[in-house]
Amino acid sequence: MTEAQEVPAALAVELTELLGNRFSQAAAVRGHHSAGEGWDNPVLPAAVCFPETTEEVAALAEACAGAAVPIVPFGAGSSLEAHVVPPPTGISVDLTRMNAIIDVSEGDLDCHVQAGVTREQLETHLNKRGIFFPVDPGADATLGGMVATGASGTTTVRYGAMRENVLGLTVVLADGRIIRTGGRARKSSAGYDLTRLFIASEGTLGIITEVRLRLRGIPEAISAAVCQFDTVADVVNSVIEAIQIELPLARSELVDAVQMSAFIEHEGLDEFEPKPTLMLEFHGSEEGVREQAEAMAAICSSHGGADFRWVTKQEDRTRLWRARHRAYYAVMAMAPGKKAMITDACVPISRLAECIEETRADLERTGLLSPIVGHIGDGNFHCQILCAPDDDAEIAACRSFVGRLAERAIAMGGTCTGEHGVGANKIDYVEQEYGPAVDVMRSIKRALDPQNVMNPGKVLRF
Amino acid sequence: MTEAQEVPAALAVELTELLGNRFSQAAAVRGHHSAGEGWDNPVLPAAVCFPETTEEVAALAEACAGAAVPIVPFGAGSSLEAHVVPPPTGISVDLTRMNAIIDVSEGDLDCHVQAGVTREQLETHLNKRGIFFPVDPGADATLGGMVATGASGTTTVRYGAMRENVLGLTVVLADGRIIRTGGRARKSSAGYDLTRLFIASEGTLGIITEVRLRLRGIPEAISAAVCQFDTVADVVNSVIEAIQIELPLARSELVDAVQMSAFIEHEGLDEFEPKPTLMLEFHGSEEGVREQAEAMAAICSSHGGADFRWVTKQEDRTRLWRARHRAYYAVMAMAPGKKAMITDACVPISRLAECIEETRADLERTGLLSPIVGHIGDGNFHCQILCAPDDDAEIAACRSFVGRLAERAIAMGGTCTGEHGVGANKIDYVEQEYGPAVDVMRSIKRALDPQNVMNPGKVLRF
Repeated sequence: MTEAQEVPAALAVELTELLGNRFSQAAAVRGHHSAGEGWDNPVLPAAVCFPETTEEVAALAEACAGAAVPIVPFGAGSSLEAHVVPPPTGISVDLTRMNAIIDVSEGDLDCHVQAGVTREQLETHLNKRGIFFPVDPGADATLGGMVATGASGTTTVRYGAMRENVLGLTVVLADGRIIRTGGRARKSSAGYDLTRLFIASEGTLGIITEVRLRLRGIPEAISAAVCQFDTVADVVNSVIEAIQIELPLARSELVDAVQMSAFIEHEGLDEFEPKPTLMLEFHGSEEGVREQAEAMAAICSSHGGADFRWVTKQEDRTRLWRARHRAYYAVMAMAPGKKAMITDACVPISRLAECIEETRADLERTGLLSPIVGHIGDGNFHCQILCAPDDDAEIAACRSFVGRLAERAIAMGGTCTGEHGVGANKIDYVEQEYGPAVDVMRSIKRALDPQNVMNPGKVLRF
Repeated sequence: MTEAQEVPAALAVELTELLGNRFSQAAAVRGHHSAGEGWDNPVLPAAVCFPETTEEVAALAEACAGAAVPIVPFGAGSSLEAHVVPPPTGISVDLTRMNAIIDVSEGDLDCHVQAGVTREQLETHLNKRGIFFPVDPGADATLGGMVATGASGTTTVRYGAMRENVLGLTVVLADGRIIRTGGRARKSSAGYDLTRLFIASEGTLGIITEVRLRLRGIPEAISAAVCQFDTVADVVNSVIEAIQIELPLARSELVDAVQMSAFIEHEGLDEFEPKPTLMLEFHGSEEGVREQAEAMAAICSSHGGADFRWVTKQEDRTRLWRARHRAYYAVMAMAPGKKAMITDACVPISRLAECIEETRADLERTGLLSPIVGHIGDGNFHCQILCAPDDDAEIAACRSFVGRLAERAIAMGGTCTGEHGVGANKIDYVEQEYGPAVDVMRSIKRALDPQNVMNPGKVLRF
């Protein structure tokens, strides 16, 4: 653990005046804000602030900017790429007390929340009204964190990622100015799209304090299906064909043979074989989901899919998706003592099978064990590489593999991260992916944060 | 017409060397590039360039930047807010020779085109392959222009606007650098979203030279329906209810009583009454569109809709949508000698009926005649105000009305433009809508175009 610096005395006084005991320099509190869920070395922040309003965030940002002290937003701490790891002089800004659901409009299907509201908190609040927010990353992240990383999930193939589901933001800039981006209109051509600029900016351009989201009606009927195949290419080709005929798949998840073994062994899915598997979900009317399932069954069968199981009962569906969402734990149970290093990449769907195949060969060459799961419809997949936390050589091998995967995705016309973000770990790959466009990103960063106090060292080199 | 300045001699030599006779100072050519389709005073550009490649655009941009001469991109010239009106020293960059469809991938449902390809050119090219690009503004605009204004259209309720359908761009910056934004992956969290930053930036941050678009499969079945109501509120409430139950309307267009009169009189739709009318389109399977139409008929009936007509025959559908797309001409036929001043605004759908009602009352108070048509699902509507081109008082009255409409939309939580853009005309309303966020837009503009040579005087004050 890197040794933290002290907060300059005058700043500590100012922040204490502002926040009282919601400004903390206690070691335990700082320890809780030293890392996310990735494999990065934790760094203690110099202090932690717990603001409760946008105005408090603005005041603390202004104070920190005055002292040239970096600030790092912190939500659920579930990010994977060291987004929340502070520099030793930095102050962690914990937004979890900003957890008010300010407004929900059923007529407009939108809502307005503070950035610290979590995905599950919002889900619970909305579901009793028959509406939902569709973006579902694995973690119970905060909405602010989901905006900051440009999150997506299993339903993105149907409903889009954060990018398509955020209507507007309230953001505190480096110098403490408060701005509102976007609005409640469904679309606008009025000026530059600052909303999308802040999505996936990872706290480097400003701190997101409030979020306006687009919501959906819970469909009348939801059903699931599972089909198993001999090859990953067969799975991918089935989904490509479904998308071509505009079959509105709500979820289309690849679970590879290694991950299926883990599910069979540790999640009790013993009616299945350890083969490449497609897990599907359909949303619509009763008739609509039946029709979708029938059409998909025919497509899967034409690609060698065997035993297409249509799952209409809620409890069976829950069991399946629970297993999918517990992929991480099932994987860890495969190799006790090891932890999973998780990475993501995204390619055009026509290259997905090839990319996964090369990745699987790479894993075998390297002697690493990793299941592969993916949001096929988006061309996005994850490796959960099992790694011994005390084995420096294995950690290095895993990191090299992660790097090769990012480069492979870029070489295939894809991106080094489809949804986890850049953080401190993928800066080189962003350079490789975009080249001179990174200079434009840098110009924007310098224009909005000339002192480099907003989460420095993330997304790009200043 | 404002008198144009001459191109500095050295620059004229440099551009002639670069482009030969594709650099023109001829009066007629300059005249064709002096205005779009709005009501703005034309301004002759000092010259016009007709580049054929991204590299030529880069070279001419670099040359113009060296001489501090502004450049203004020009596509189909169909924009409505003076986007293409140059400053008198400016050079118009006509991109219509960059009309190559570079690549179409049916597997990935994406394509790569030069910015000068027009919407109808692309449509013809794609349709024979069973795929289409869904964004359909009224005009046969270029794709580059549609990106630059953040266009949308009648199918945006289902398929999204340009914002949701552009995967990536090639852009020439003010100093001639060429960058590529986005890519072919369906989603990415790798760095700042420059793609969305350039969408709706109206040539003020760079010139878009190539566009990568997301495509869709043509649905198996398409059907339309028309239903007439007593009030605009009934029409809007029907669509709100449909969206709440996730009925996937492909089009939901309001045609108000005044516009219906025009259609009845000038487009032969004499089976209808001059009442608020909802025109619908459904996309899906044969069974799916029947089910959608039945569900929608029930909803409309519950809101007082009469005589729901389901239109399945292609020729009947074509006749209806042809009328809708000819709204402009039908309107002009209502008052020979007058021309329509067209404006757009967009509000949260829950405020749409109220906004239209107040707008209708405003028109009556002002003694102006304007039909109102709207993309209801998006909360977006247009007025086509009939105005005598030689009557300065009437022109002034129309402009005042347009301003009040923008302010009304903003006051209701909406935006001063849903799809036409800001251009030179709505700069004040963007200030009103976003306040301090405009300073952030300005910081970005200054960072990317410090000399203010990229379409100066549009979107914001430098």
